[in-house]
Amino acid sequence: MKNVISAVCIKCGAEHEATPGITTCSKCGGLLDIKYDYAYIKKNFTKEKLAQRELSMWRYEELLPVTGEAKIKKLRVGWSPMYKADRLAEAIGLENLWVKDDGINPTASLKDRASSMAVVKAAEAGVDTIACSSTGNAASSLAGNSAAAGFKTYIFVPDRAPKGKVAQLMIFGANVITVKGSYEDTFRLSAEAIDRWHWYNRNAAINPYLMEGKKTVALEIAEQFDFKMPEYVAISVGDGCTIAGAWKGFKDLYAIGAIDRLPRLISVQSTGCYPINKAFAENKPLEHMEENTIADSIAVGVPRNADKALNAIRESNGIAVNVTDEEILDTMRLVGRTCGVFGEPAGSAGTAGVRKAVKDGLIPSSATVCTVVTGNGLKDVANAIKAAGEPLNIAPDMNELVKYLKI
Amino acid sequence: MKNVISAVCIKCGAEHEATPGITTCSKCGGLLDIKYDYAYIKKNFTKEKLAQRELSMWRYEELLPVTGEAKIKKLRVGWSPMYKADRLAEAIGLENLWVKDDGINPTASLKDRASSMAVVKAAEAGVDTIACSSTGNAASSLAGNSAAAGFKTYIFVPDRAPKGKVAQLMIFGANVITVKGSYEDTFRLSAEAIDRWHWYNRNAAINPYLMEGKKTVALEIAEQFDFKMPEYVAISVGDGCTIAGAWKGFKDLYAIGAIDRLPRLISVQSTGCYPINKAFAENKPLEHMEENTIADSIAVGVPRNADKALNAIRESNGIAVNVTDEEILDTMRLVGRTCGVFGEPAGSAGTAGVRKAVKDGLIPSSATVCTVVTGNGLKDVANAIKAAGEPLNIAPDMNELVKYLKI
Repeated sequence: MKNVISAVCIKCGAEHEATPGITTCSKCGGLLDIKYDYAYIKKNFTKEKLAQRELSMWRYEELLPVTGEAKIKKLRVGWSPMYKADRLAEAIGLENLWVKDDGINPTASLKDRASSMAVVKAAEAGVDTIACSSTGNAASSLAGNSAAAGFKTYIFVPDRAPKGKVAQLMIFGANVITVKGSYEDTFRLSAEAIDRWHWYNRNAAINPYLMEGKKTVALEIAEQFDFKMPEYVAISVGDGCTIAGAWKGFKDLYAIGAIDRLPRLISVQSTGCYPINKAFAENKPLEHMEENTIADSIAVGVPRNADKALNAIRESNGIAVNVTDEEILDTMRLVGRTCGVFGEPAGSAGTAGVRKAVKDGLIPSSATVCTVVTGNGLKDVANAIKAAGEPLNIAPDMNELVKYLKI
Repeated sequence: MKNVISAVCIKCGAEHEATPGITTCSKCGGLLDIKYDYAYIKKNFTKEKLAQRELSMWRYEELLPVTGEAKIKKLRVGWSPMYKADRLAEAIGLENLWVKDDGINPTASLKDRASSMAVVKAAEAGVDTIACSSTGNAASSLAGNSAAAGFKTYIFVPDRAPKGKVAQLMIFGANVITVKGSYEDTFRLSAEAIDRWHWYNRNAAINPYLMEGKKTVALEIAEQFDFKMPEYVAISVGDGCTIAGAWKGFKDLYAIGAIDRLPRLISVQSTGCYPINKAFAENKPLEHMEENTIADSIAVGVPRNADKALNAIRESNGIAVNVTDEEILDTMRLVGRTCGVFGEPAGSAGTAGVRKAVKDGLIPSSATVCTVVTGNGLKDVANAIKAAGEPLNIAPDMNELVKYLKI
């Protein structure tokens, strides 16, 4: 990889060779961050080259830490649509609002960007099996992207995991192990198994390459804005990998001179679980929190990538907003009926945060804002039902219809 | 529309002006078909022009019956991925098999192609409200595409419709009327209401433009094969609009000389409901059938577009295959674990049909085959659970894991 220098520990600063199977710092256990040779990239990354490439996350090859992606059968991940959302903007009180729908990815969430990367790195590492523990989008995206590429997967989930999500994993041919215990029990068992059988580790935060996959969402935002950056980018935050990844992408582009200003990040969490936003707001060390929100994908009381996420929010002169479940559900409806985009609760939280930030005067109505819908609402129909309200129910009789419709 | 000559009745041959609000033949009630000026299109449709256009269904503007599409806010419909499915091919016994995943459309089914067209034609007709009766993908795609464009919708569903599907409609802001009665009751009430309030009619078959939207799946297949056509294209068949639309697309391209051979169509229905395949196989008039299959999107006992569908199968020297629910569920699993593509039951039926056709010797193993996954499996998680089987369930104990995994 001519574009990559090393993997740097964000805690002790030690530099390690960026081998495909690298996880955490061998000296202090800190998280690693992939360090690029921006001078080299600047020479090789041009908008002319870009214009000729396929529309997927892999179009940004100079900014990605890979060598083997061409040989892998991949699902078409990325290049999700960016919609100018005028009616939503008006409802919220903004002049310029854009919605990026990452729910159209192959397994219906932004996590496909990380899992597609995991598959490529696993191939580089020469292993044929990938593992993770998760009940949600990370698991289904790993299962789907691995199936396409012909990798075996072992996925550990607590046995309280919803049957629908487990079924999706099984359809993709994953070896699913439901564990009689808590999420922590499940995670520990998966870690032991990964150690024993030398499977490739697809656990966000711990594997530094996954964030490099996620950063492609930022590279796309920049390109879709023709490299003239919006002032704010809003992202819902759980373990912190997505917002940290997005920030890495923006910083990469800034470092090579492709954009001339960085956006401010809006970090959105739930009022029922906001450890990262709390640490940021109070400028104190992170404390673990309970997980009380319907937005399951961001209900992370012990976020594993908090350090990078906090750096991202701080460096960007960012804003932290916490939203209630009611605000999330109401925003699901609002985005649905003004944009035709159906996000899951965690996928709608970012937009709910923008709404609140405008209402509270944290961002001016003249600002240009981009919000990312990180997952498809079909993943969580139960909460869509909560959000949706009741339809009109009548007999098949025209008089009754006329009476009720009042038009 | 310089490219369109008229709307021709497929029953009596009468030609009508192709106005935006046209439905069925005013003389005999037959279905209409949009007739193009192929000489004009041949002069104006070039692969060089095509190469510069956005990747959506609207890139084929010379072959679409529209004038107003540029003014409408549209979801990004079409240009779904085409995957070479080598491991699936091997499992089925084919040398060259391709899977087109139309489940990644904005509301997760191929029906978005018809609904995007409906929205554009409604705008041309100068109306602000669109209506249909349906419980499935047509309804959700109409609701989503209309929401993006700012149209009001009235959607009539029988009150036995699954709550999840109704919720999706409500999220998109549709006015949903659940009717205490059968599907026929529901359809009749919607027809009366459309008449009374002059709403735009988005009922497939009855509105000839919808098939023109659906045909873009065929235009994409051709382009993704670099205009060197596969020998067979498999599509699951319900009311007949999709297979008829696909055939129209292939014939259009053939007429303007963009492809030099037509594929044979594989029409796949369920053994629990196959009126179109029965009429084709027995060469007899269509008879209505019961609807006994889990593949709800193709469970159509009274298909409204049977005439065009039968023409398509016959003209293409096609093949009709009926598959059982078990074969559909088994194929869902097979496609999931070999391709990373998760189709709903009706979306997987096409591939199940290919499997059966190969097994029965109807198509040779050397054939190049393309199969279309018409809808996303997340739309029907209940059946995914049926298909998926049970995961391993153990205590959080490494010894137990070792014992059960046997690796």
